[in-house]
Amino acid sequence: MKVSLLGPRGTFSEEAALKFFKSPEMVYRGEIEDIFEDVLEGRADYGLVPIENSLEGSIGITLDLLLKKDVKICGEVVIDVKHSLMVLPGTALEDVREVISHPHALAQCRGFIKKRALKTKNFPSTAGAAREIAEKKLRNTAAIAPERAAGLYGLEVLERDIQDEDFNQTRFLVIALKDGSPSGRDKTSIIFALRHEPGSLYEALKPFASAMINLTKIESRPSRKALGDYVFYLDFEGHRSEKGVKKVLTELKERVAFLKVLGSYPAAKG
Amino acid sequence: MKVSLLGPRGTFSEEAALKFFKSPEMVYRGEIEDIFEDVLEGRADYGLVPIENSLEGSIGITLDLLLKKDVKICGEVVIDVKHSLMVLPGTALEDVREVISHPHALAQCRGFIKKRALKTKNFPSTAGAAREIAEKKLRNTAAIAPERAAGLYGLEVLERDIQDEDFNQTRFLVIALKDGSPSGRDKTSIIFALRHEPGSLYEALKPFASAMINLTKIESRPSRKALGDYVFYLDFEGHRSEKGVKKVLTELKERVAFLKVLGSYPAAKG
Repeated sequence: MKVSLLGPRGTFSEEAALKFFKSPEMVYRGEIEDIFEDVLEGRADYGLVPIENSLEGSIGITLDLLLKKDVKICGEVVIDVKHSLMVLPGTALEDVREVISHPHALAQCRGFIKKRALKTKNFPSTAGAAREIAEKKLRNTAAIAPERAAGLYGLEVLERDIQDEDFNQTRFLVIALKDGSPSGRDKTSIIFALRHEPGSLYEALKPFASAMINLTKIESRPSRKALGDYVFYLDFEGHRSEKGVKKVLTELKERVAFLKVLGSYPAAKG
Repeated sequence: MKVSLLGPRGTFSEEAALKFFKSPEMVYRGEIEDIFEDVLEGRADYGLVPIENSLEGSIGITLDLLLKKDVKICGEVVIDVKHSLMVLPGTALEDVREVISHPHALAQCRGFIKKRALKTKNFPSTAGAAREIAEKKLRNTAAIAPERAAGLYGLEVLERDIQDEDFNQTRFLVIALKDGSPSGRDKTSIIFALRHEPGSLYEALKPFASAMINLTKIESRPSRKALGDYVFYLDFEGHRSEKGVKKVLTELKERVAFLKVLGSYPAAKG
């Protein structure tokens, strides 16, 4: 079974894929949009895309693509993000002048970097930064990447868990052409836009409140059309095939200007 | 009257300040956090900070600082964002190899840049990129910046309005230690967090719906504490000193876990 995800080997995405799938065949991609295209054009059975990080917030590009592209969500997986500092074997911590990584990883290790007065350089991927050091044999440069990347690229880990905040989780969505079958512990994700009327968000939420359905996420996002125009991303408990959920979605559709059901899928455990 | 804003001279922030204030004395800063500190510590009477762009969405750092710092909002101003390509006098378009600017400006001119196969480099500010070219006398490099920056730094504008999308506006907030007096066309901005109960957002919006108060913005943002924990940024029509608005805020306070009133201020015209 083929899974398209952010590469190269050793990314946090790969860690998430290994947690979710039994024996995935990985298709490594550089851009989140490529992953959506792989699923839509049949080059992969599943796609795995980051959706939110507890420190950085939502991944805007993923939210935008969920609105634009006709994929379904069939699963989710949450991983703990732990950053390691890695170098070419033989480089000592006091020889490190510059550290390269994804801007989010650099931001999440700001305290560590500042304390050691290291220069930083952005790189499109954490694991890619590790590979860069190995391939170009960069001395005096370290990568911040998942510990697994060190083993894959022959680097040495100088420090583990260098992130400023202990609680740092990333949630990934598994996308496909179909959503998930009922599992008994499901969530449903939808996107909607409101009519321009006072009370329209309140009216849109009424069916959920009346049915005592728990919202697990609500996020508004500028529509990119005009300032003050929003689309809403809503996750709630239940499967769209359940009678109560069906009724709520029917009622919601009558109250909003636009509704897209992204699908139902088993909620990630803890 | 001193206004702290993102510098250097010639930024879109400066354009916004000149639109809002009669004869401001500018205090140019490199980081949005510095602007909040200038206001809090009395180094400036007002601060001017970007809050959202119609293409890029909200400015996360501004939202976070509004939650953390004890400033008030006393005004807002909206400007049209128009990008120009500028170079050292004498450099022709066909000699330009690389273009430097703020990542958002580069993203907003992606079509223009791609068509001419230009390399790009990130710079912390659009006007700063223009100044860099002037100071270092960079040939073969162009800056994407507001047209005004060309005049300020002695550069030549090669192309105007190079952004991909015609509709591109940025909204700025004016912050101070006090909010605004009633003007008859006011907005109020608040931040709140919900109790963890089904229907809690619905219940929080009820007072607004009952009072027929128009919400002009609602945005949720991960709290950075845990996945699935949100704070809400809400703008609505009316001044907090009006009787109806007072009643709604009192009712809201009873329904939420946390409420911060950022202040009331005259809504920007068109």
